[in-house]
Parts: sequence; structure tokens; C-alpha cells
Amino acid sequence: MSDALCANFQIKELHPLMAHPEHNPSQEDKMEGQAKTAEASCWHRSWARFLKGVSYFSGDMEVFAKWMERQFFLLQLLDWVLRGAAQVMFVNNPLSGLIIFAGLILQNYWWALNGFVGTLFATISALFLQQSRGAIAAGLYGYNGILVGLLMAVFSNAGDWYWWLLLPNIFMSMMCPIVSSALASINSRWDLPVFTLPFNILVCLHMVATGHYNHHFPQVLIQPRSELPNITWSEINVAKLFRSVPVGIGQVYGCDNPWTGGIFIISLFISSPITCAHAVLGSAVGMVSGLALSAPFEDIYFGLWGYNCVLACIAIGGMFYALTWRVHLLAITCALFCAYLGSAIANVMSRFGLPACTWPFCLSALTFLLLTTGTKAIFKLPLAKVTYPEKNLAFYWRMKKQEKAEKEREDPLKAVNEQVILNETEQLKLELQQMEEGKQEGENEMTTEEDQRVNIEETNRQNTFSEVVRLDYV
Amino acid sequence: MSDALCANFQIKELHPLMAHPEHNPSQEDKMEGQAKTAEASCWHRSWARFLKGVSYFSGDMEVFAKWMERQFFLLQLLDWVLRGAAQVMFVNNPLSGLIIFAGLILQNYWWALNGFVGTLFATISALFLQQSRGAIAAGLYGYNGILVGLLMAVFSNAGDWYWWLLLPNIFMSMMCPIVSSALASINSRWDLPVFTLPFNILVCLHMVATGHYNHHFPQVLIQPRSELPNITWSEINVAKLFRSVPVGIGQVYGCDNPWTGGIFIISLFISSPITCAHAVLGSAVGMVSGLALSAPFEDIYFGLWGYNCVLACIAIGGMFYALTWRVHLLAITCALFCAYLGSAIANVMSRFGLPACTWPFCLSALTFLLLTTGTKAIFKLPLAKVTYPEKNLAFYWRMKKQEKAEKEREDPLKAVNEQVILNETEQLKLELQQMEEGKQEGENEMTTEEDQRVNIEETNRQNTFSEVVRLDYV
Amino acid sequence: MSDALCANFQIKELHPLMAHPEHNPSQEDKMEGQAKTAEASCWHRSWARFLKGVSYFSGDMEVFAKWMERQFFLLQLLDWVLRGAAQVMFVNNPLSGLIIFAGLILQNYWWALNGFVGTLFATISALFLQQSRGAIAAGLYGYNGILVGLLMAVFSNAGDWYWWLLLPNIFMSMMCPIVSSALASINSRWDLPVFTLPFNILVCLHMVATGHYNHHFPQVLIQPRSELPNITWSEINVAKLFRSVPVGIGQVYGCDNPWTGGIFIISLFISSPITCAHAVLGSAVGMVSGLALSAPFEDIYFGLWGYNCVLACIAIGGMFYALTWRVHLLAITCALFCAYLGSAIANVMSRFGLPACTWPFCLSALTFLLLTTGTKAIFKLPLAKVTYPEKNLAFYWRMKKQEKAEKEREDPLKAVNEQVILNETEQLKLELQQMEEGKQEGENEMTTEEDQRVNIEETNRQNTFSEVVRLDYV
Repeated sequence: MSDALCANFQIKELHPLMAHPEHNPSQEDKMEGQAKTAEASCWHRSWARFLKGVSYFSGDMEVFAKWMERQFFLLQLLDWVLRGAAQVMFVNNPLSGLIIFAGLILQNYWWALNGFVGTLFATISALFLQQSRGAIAAGLYGYNGILVGLLMAVFSNAGDWYWWLLLPNIFMSMMCPIVSSALASINSRWDLPVFTLPFNILVCLHMVATGHYNHHFPQVLIQPRSELPNITWSEINVAKLFRSVPVGIGQVYGCDNPWTGGIFIISLFISSPITCAHAVLGSAVGMVSGLALSAPFEDIYFGLWGYNCVLACIAIGGMFYALTWRVHLLAITCALFCAYLGSAIANVMSRFGLPACTWPFCLSALTFLLLTTGTKAIFKLPLAKVTYPEKNLAFYWRMKKQEKAEKEREDPLKAVNEQVILNETEQLKLELQQMEEGKQEGENEMTTEEDQRVNIEETNRQNTFSEVVRLDYV
Repeated sequence: MSDALCANFQIKELHPLMAHPEHNPSQEDKMEGQAKTAEASCWHRSWARFLKGVSYFSGDMEVFAKWMERQFFLLQLLDWVLRGAAQVMFVNNPLSGLIIFAGLILQNYWWALNGFVGTLFATISALFLQQSRGAIAAGLYGYNGILVGLLMAVFSNAGDWYWWLLLPNIFMSMMCPIVSSALASINSRWDLPVFTLPFNILVCLHMVATGHYNHHFPQVLIQPRSELPNITWSEINVAKLFRSVPVGIGQVYGCDNPWTGGIFIISLFISSPITCAHAVLGSAVGMVSGLALSAPFEDIYFGLWGYNCVLACIAIGGMFYALTWRVHLLAITCALFCAYLGSAIANVMSRFGLPACTWPFCLSALTFLLLTTGTKAIFKLPLAKVTYPEKNLAFYWRMKKQEKAEKEREDPLKAVNEQVILNETEQLKLELQQMEEGKQEGENEMTTEEDQRVNIEETNRQNTFSEVVRLDYV
Repeated sequence: MSDALCANFQIKELHPLMAHPEHNPSQEDKMEGQAKTAEASCWHRSWARFLKGVSYFSGDMEVFAKWMERQFFLLQLLDWVLRGAAQVMFVNNPLSGLIIFAGLILQNYWWALNGFVGTLFATISALFLQQSRGAIAAGLYGYNGILVGLLMAVFSNAGDWYWWLLLPNIFMSMMCPIVSSALASINSRWDLPVFTLPFNILVCLHMVATGHYNHHFPQVLIQPRSELPNITWSEINVAKLFRSVPVGIGQVYGCDNPWTGGIFIISLFISSPITCAHAVLGSAVGMVSGLALSAPFEDIYFGLWGYNCVLACIAIGGMFYALTWRVHLLAITCALFCAYLGSAIANVMSRFGLPACTWPFCLSALTFLLLTTGTKAIFKLPLAKVTYPEKNLAFYWRMKKQEKAEKEREDPLKAVNEQVILNETEQLKLELQQMEEGKQEGENEMTTEEDQRVNIEETNRQNTFSEVVRLDYV
């Protein structure tokens, strides 16, 4: 199924989430027309029709998004909110969002309401602040809102249906786009996404600002462990251990109901089977790590070891890197590291009465995305090209193919041209840098001196080399 | 009064705090001359004279600074120290500094002495390290020093007139320019100021390094709250609540005397009425937030909820953004967020026996300054152009007028030119980026391939679009 | 001795650690040949021979590294591991590494084994991830590994020869290159090294993730101080105080044996006398700071106040800055600041049951490396040119000489050229910046307007000035 979908996406060439919406449907139609005339068999036709049908509600539902643009504003807003709900798992699909809301309602009405309010107000606030319409439409301003809304309700000690909670909920949700935008200003320098950092910051802020001993907004009491937990390996419950995998996926939204987790798995599968597989894998890795570090069984059953690994495994495994075998291994390593980090952060945060939130995921995924290697098998997609794993893969393959074709055609000529361009921009960059450091005088002269000694070819090689070395220097 | 001053500033065109001191007094004189001949009435003349008189000691006292440059070194140093004392509130005015020192002396002699020593040694250290003379003369190396000196005295548990305290005071003050310079190296990448971060870092460092249980430099004992505070709404004291507004302004310098706070308000009004208004507004917002989050009344009366909001409200409301209605609302939001953050940070820091210092202000103001929006009504001034709210506003208005005039004149021609420039720099930037990522080969060929397919106009649009998207991507 | 070595290094012109390995031995040989024919006396010849002999095993042992490149892979790996062991102290010398391992074995067999395993697996992991071969060969991926291995063994509460510990040890060591690479992506923007940050992060992560109350990997119990320590100045032991200097150097590797510290001093002296002197100086400064801040004597005797200062003093005193008298004073200031910071961080970390690790060194050294000054006597070497203090100094002197010669030759012409280049790149940079901020339209027009008013010479001055101001703005 995954292969079939994948092939379909390649034919379709659905648009990227964020960039160049230059769609050429005429070409597509032509291709499909040719396919039809060539293979007129009934089975093929129905299969093609099925794939076409699937493409309408899988992936990022591009056709639907196009159609939505001409609809009533409130309907559009609903689309954005649903996409926002799914974007927590990096899924840009309103159908997945709808299913996720169904899962939340199954868990708890009050939480679901808070989540909806959070997503709604975060999206509205982004509109007020005139953030990028494309990002809003992709739900990228909503996913922090839903998490803020949900988790503020989950960790409130005032019980369900405490309506005053909606006030800080709305305020914090409306702060989401501000914090998102601020963090994006920083992270964009390294071409990194902000992940759920705004949610982590804002929920921790609310919880620690009020605390357990607050009259208006009391929080549940979280305390650090200060004695040896009672762990008897014979008491382990294998059924509960297996159930912790879907529970771990549910815990991404703060839900401990395994059925809710199962519904979330379905919603992931609809949009992207690769994402779905990595989510399950991540949750399993987290569970195993919990056992390895001798965590209390209750924590593992409750999915606390899983949810960060789920997100980390999805992010690295095909979402921001193009999925190859090496990247798959990297994703598993990242999930392991994330589990370790999760335990560490939970212990630190508990001193302040705080939960770990998704800090471990954010920090581990950012670390692994900052990694630079010499191998081409680990290819980080430019942020503007990130869509969903299947499409990212298609982009990566196309790029590799073009690269190969290019190399065969104009190998001798290109190398020289590239060197010249490289050298020019390199020197410009160095000059900019020198100015920044306010030491232009001294070093400029050095450069001039050295330039006179070596001829141009040598300079080229040297500059390139020093640049590579500088970046690799630890 | 505010409008009158404002108009005056526009006519005067006082020099920016930091940049281009190319002053053209001849033009000014001419303008004034014309004004005088045209309207020879006595009232107008005296009013103009009054405005001119006011301009000598309001704003950043540029004329005085010019005059000072030719004076004896120790007198200059005194000017820098006084400006440093006022720069805590973003005011570059020696008269305000003098009044602030008066307020400090009213509060406590020993504290005032420590503050003076701190400012002095911070400025001297900056001179030793050959920092920018313009920044030193504007007091930008002194304001962290005064806070370090004051707060180390305030939080010392050894009582007043414990002379040994001057030793760490001098050491920490002299570290200020080093930490300032280091932080500026980082923050300048985002065109952000360092605010009072050096003060926060150094005072927290001193306090946590010594702690309450230290033989040489004991600190006051600060402990986390661990039970429900006793809050009875009927016991609220409205008079004290109102008094908490000036007290909050006084707490910026660690002073709990409402008269001292009042004196500070006067010193702000002298330099910039907009700053003064936002200071009072910020303190009021902080007080209300404290009530909303059910803080103990004593904390609110003591001004602990106000001082961060004061600074945040000043910084956003006209100082680093040009003051428009939207920015005014943003400033109030920032003050609210700052109050929330203040409570959170105070709770976290109390675990280590530390006060919140001005961390909440720094973090909230930096977040709001990193915000990027699509609207032109929120205009962040380039850091080198920041002076004081009235003048910033004049700069913004002039810029907008010129922009409009420009657009009317050469609308059709410009658009094309801009596109070309945009495209060129865009491509250069992309090349630089590719080199940085060490993946130039693969992507370069991609670009070449794609470029051949689309014509130039399309590339322009595409590049611009992808750039905007990339920056807005969350 | 130091001077003699230094002169030798200048003649030899050994290669930089990281960059341009274009070696021209012919020139060197010629120089040496001339020297020999000119001064034929026996004494001089034997002295020269001695210097040549010393050069083979001092400094970064460049000749040996060249020879190693043609050897069997496992032998190369051993070389890298030994260099990695010494790189903790910024020494790129396998002989020093060997002596350091001898010191570790003297301290504790089990710790030494863990250190070796850590270095080995960190290096192997870097090879897997295809990191820069030059950096691996210089041991730059090993030094975090040895510290991770050693300190995980030191802080384990399970006793020596608890073989299961090797599992997290290997995992964390293999994470080192990933974290190193990620941090380098960030730090390289400011041309900063990552120091031992990966070690700090990973060991703290392991310790806090497991904690004292863990069944599998229990850690030693570290608790915050909560009462007045009993310090009687008459009980001070001067012999132990002096012994704390070598102990402080030993504590860099977690060793409390003064003989081990002594062996480390020897290993430093072999490679670079300047490094050795600053190590001893740093340890002494740390000891004095401990007394000044009235730390418990036991902590001082145990070397806990020394090891961070040792590293900070080495890093600033000649390693990343060229050693001048001002830099020497800066190094002492940095050691003082580091001691202060060490106390602060130890107090904070103890709340989480963590040791201070080398966080104080990393933070203080990074702060001092980010410092920008107007004086040329504080010259920060470009990261790619950093080797060891003696050679850095030679580079600095050569640069200064060339600069002077250059200035004398083409003083009048150059100034103009430089201005033009400066202006061009300045404008380009501004344009890039404006685009980034998405406010290009408005400001572009402003610039155009202003440009028309002023002539080119004025623009030059103005741009340069505003740039300098902007960077120095605090």
C-alpha cells in the first residue's frame, strides 16, 4: 500500500506544503490520458481510479485546499483549525485533524473543547498579526494552540468544566503566534523549524507562574522522586506493555486512552504511511528504553516514555530528512536519545512542579537536524521543501536523478564554472565577516599579501577547503 | 504637552543617540528665522523660546553632550555616569540621571554609593577595553553597572556599610562591559539590544555563588512558596494598591519608597513624556496581573509585579518600535506577558535562593522584538537609529512620507528595478547558503536545471515568494 | 626554554591543526641549510640538532602525524585516540596523550579503561558519521569521549568493575560526535569552538536521567549545602593548599591524586610550555578564589576550585587569543570569573544532584571569546588557524610584520580601495538585511532618497560608521 501510494504521489506531483504553488495540471492530465489509452484493461483503469480517489484525501489534500480557497471564510477557518490539530504530528491534512478531534472527544469532552478553543484563537491571533497566509492555511500556527489548550486543561487541578480556565487558555493561545514568530526568527538562521517549542514555553510558563498553591488556577502536584522505586521484574504485565505503544501515541495530545491512541494511528495512516510506521516504531523504542533505564512500570504503561520518541522518530524519519536506510537508523538513534533525554528532563522539571512536556522531543530533534555529515545518504531537506515523507522522498529521488544526468552531460565545463562562482562568493563572504568582526584592516592586508603569492586556481581550492574545514571544526 | 514637545523635536531634528552625528544647524537656524519673521507676535516668540529652552534639557540633551566633548575628562566621566544611571530606563539624559541619584539617596545612602561605584567602574572598565566611545558616552556601559552595584547592596545580608562588599561590587561592575560585549556579539545578529541581561547574569552569579550560608558575602534568604497563601479579598487596601504604581517604578532600581518612585517618574517625564506614560501604564498592568493571578497582596504592594512590566512597556511602546496604535496595544500585551513570565521566573529562581531580577523583562521584550509581521504599522527601528520615542516617531513619519513621495514619482520604473536587484541579491544569498550547508553540488545543479525551464520573470516571483515563505515558516 | 622552543617553531613553520596542509619543506630545508653554513661552530650545531629533536615530539607532532598517515588503520586509530585524550587540555600530541593515560592508570584502572573505551567509540562514531577526517585525526572527536567515559565511571555509585556501565558509556560516547557536530553548527556562526559542551550535556543527561535512586545505573548522591559551613582559618593546611594546584589539574580528568596531576603537568610541558604555565596559573587562581569566597577547605584541597580555571586560563591565555600582556591579564580575569561561575553553577547543579562538570569553563571561555574590543593587542585567531600557543604567537607576529610592511608600501592607494570595497559590500549587506526583514520596500526608497542627497565619499564614511556603531551598541 505504501509503495502504491508513493508511486501515485510521484505521478501526481502534489504541491509542497509551503513553497512554489506552480501546479501544471495539464501535463498531469496528458500523462493520465496516455496511460489510459495505452492500457485499456478494466483492472488497470479501476486501480488508477482508486489511486486518484486516495490522492484526494491522503497526503496534504492539496486539491481540497485549492477548492477551499474559494469558500466562505468560516469554512476556511475550520479547515485551518483541523489542519492545525493534525500538524502536531507533522500532518497537514484536515481529515486527519477531524479524526484526531474525534479521538479527543472519546477521551474527554472538556479537554477537546479546550483544544479546539486553543487552536481557534491561535489561528485568529496569527491572522491579526498578519503572519504568512500560507503557513496559517497549513495549520502551522494552530498546532501549538491545540497543545496549549489541551495540556492546560489536563494539568489543571480545578477539575473539568472550570470555565475560568478558558481565560488563560485564550491568552496563552493568542501568545502562540508571537512566540512562534520570535523563535522562527532565530531558528530560521539554521533553517530549522520551531517544532512545539512555543507550546513548551507557554504551558510551562503558565504552570510555574500559578503552581499547585494558587487560588485561581491551581495545577496538579508534581514532585521529584526521592526514594528507590519498587520494581519487581516478575510483576511485569506484557499486555499493558504492548498497549503502551498506542497509549504513547495518544500521550502526544495528553491522552491515556489506548483507543484514542489507536484512532490517532489511523489518522496518521490516512495521510502518510511512513509517518504512521515511524510513530509506532518510536513509541516502541521509548517503551524499551524505559525498561532499560529501569523506570517504574506505571510510567511506561501510561505512555510517558513514548510520546516524545514518537515525535522525534517521525521528525527525523522522513519528515525533515529524506528517508534512506541511514536516516532510518538515525531516526531510531534519535528516538533512543530522546527517551534518555526525556527521563532527564522529567527529573529536572519535576523540581519545579512541571511535567516534561515535549521538551525532550524538541531538543533531540533539533540536535539531530543540526548534524552535518560528509555523506550524501543523510540529506536534510530545505525547510521550504518539507511536505510529507512520501513526497520528500520523491523530491530527493528526482534531485538525485537530475544531479546524475547533469554530471554526465557537462562534467568538465561545470567544475570550472562552479569553482569561479564559489570563489567569488567565498571572498565576498569573508569580506563581510571581516567587517563584522571589526578587524578588517589587519586581515584584509594579510589576504592581499597571500593572494599575490598564490595563483587563482590555488586560491579557489584553498578557500573552499578552509570553508569546509571551518564548518566541520568541532 | 506631549504633542508640543513632539512637534518641537521634529523641528529641531536632534541627533540620534548612536549614529550619524552629521548635524546641520544652518538649516535649522534658517527655518527658525523664517518662522520668526512670518509670525512676529510676542506670544509666538516666547513660546518658541520656551520650546528651545526645553529642548536643551529634554530628550537626549544633544547640545549638552556636544559641549561636554570639549570639557575636562573627569567632568565627561561624570556625564557618562549620570547618563548610565538613566539608561536603565532607556533614557539618555544626564539631568534624569542626576534626579535618579537624588531618588536613590532619598532611599538609602549606602545603596546610592554602591550604585555610583558600580556605574563608575563599569564605565572605566569599558574605557580600558576600548569599547565604542559613542556607546560609552551614551551611558550604555554604565546602566548594568548601577544595577549590579545597587542590587548587590540590596540583597546583601551583611547589613549596610559592610565595606568589603565593594570588592565583589567593583569586580562584577568591571565584568559588565565584557559580558555586555559578548552578548552584543550574539544579539547583534538579530539587531537586538542586550537590555539588562549582563546585570541579570552577574547579580545572579554573585548571589548563587555565595548564597545565604556564606561567611564573607551572605545573601538574604529567598525560599520557594510551598503552601496556599492567605488571600482575603475583603482585606485589600486600595490606597496601597494605587501606591504600588510608583513603587513598581522605583523597584526598577530596587527601591520600595513611593517618593523615590515619584522622583523617577519626574526624571522620565523630563526626557520623554511617552516613556513616562508607558512606565506608569506598565506598572499599572503589572499590578492588575498580580491581582488576576491571585498573588499575595504584599508582593503587589511592594512593587514586585510592576518593575518588569514598566521596562517591557517602555521598550516596546515607542522605544524600539515606532509608536502607533498597534504598537501601543502590543506594548500592553507585552507588559501582561511580562507579568505572567515574572511570576513564573520568580517561582523558578526562588528554588535557588534567587530573586527574579529583570529576567522577565529581558525575555519578554526580546521575544516581542523578534516578532516579524506582515503589517507596516509595526515598524521595528534599526538599532542604530533608536534614540527616544518622540524622535523615533519623527524618524518613522519622515520615512513614511518619503516612501509615499517616492512611490508617486517613479512607480512604474522602480518596480522593475527593485525586482532585478531583489533577484540578484536573492540568488547570491541562496548561493551563500548552499555553500554553508556544504551541499552546493547537488542543489546547484537543481537550480540550474530549473532555471533553464522557467523564464526570468517567473524566477523573480518565485524567489521572492520562497524567501518570504521561508522566513515566515514556523 | 620557552623562547628557544618558540624560535624553533617559527623556523619550522609547522602546519596548522586544521587548515591548509600545504607544506613547503624545501624552503625550510634551505633556511636551515643557510643557518648551518653561516654558524659552523660545534655548540651551535648540537643546539640546533637538539632543537630539531625536540620539535619531533613537542608541539602537535606534525611530522609524526604525516608519517602515521601511511600506516596501518588500527595504528592510526590509536594515534587519534591518544591525541583525543590530550585534546581535553587543547594539546594535539599523542605522546602527551600516552602520558595522560599513564596518569589515569596510576589513579584507577577501571576509570582509565572507561576513558579509553569512551575515546575509542567517540572516534569510531565520528568515522561512521563521516565527519571531517582532519578533525578526527587531530583528536577533536575524542576528547569529549574520554571525559564522558571517565566521569560516568567516577560518578557511578555501583562501584568499580560494574561491567554494565560500559553500555551507557558506549552509547553516550557515540552520541558525542552528533552533539559536537550540532553545537559546531551553532558556534561556527561566531567562529567559536564547542569546547567540552558535548561532554557536559551528555554526562549531565546520563546522571539526571538515572539519578541516585536507580536500579541499573545509580549515581553518587550530591546534595545542596543548607547550613553555614564550619570554617576556622587557623585550621588551614598550607601544604595541602599548595598540593591543590596539581590536584586541580588532575581534576580536569576527575582525578584527585596529586601525582596524577603532576604527570599531567609534564605531559602539557612536552607539548607547549605556555599551556603548562597557564594551567598551573589557572589552578592557583582558582585556589585563591576559593579562599576569597570562603569555600570549605576540603573542596579547595580536593581541586574542585581549580580544574575549570585551568581550562579557562589555557583557552584564553594563548590558545584562542595570541598571547600578549593584555591577553595574559585577560586570561587571569577569565580564571577569576570562571572560579566565581564555578561556585555558582555547582550550587545550582547540586539541586538536581549533579556536579558542575566543566560548564563554568565552557561558559566563561565562550564569554571571553565573544568579547570584541577596539584594541589590536587582543587578537582572536580565526578558528581554522588555532594550533598551540607558541605557533599561534608566531602567526600573530608574522601577520603584524606583514601588515606593517604593507602599510609603508601602499598607504595612500589602499585607503581609497578599501573604502570602495567596504562601501560595496556594506550596501549589499544592507540590502540582504532589508530583504530578510521583509521591509525592503519602505527602506529601499529611503536609501535611494538619501543617496541622492549625499555624494559618494560621504556615504562611505557614513556606512562604515553606522556599521561600527551598530556592532558596538550594547
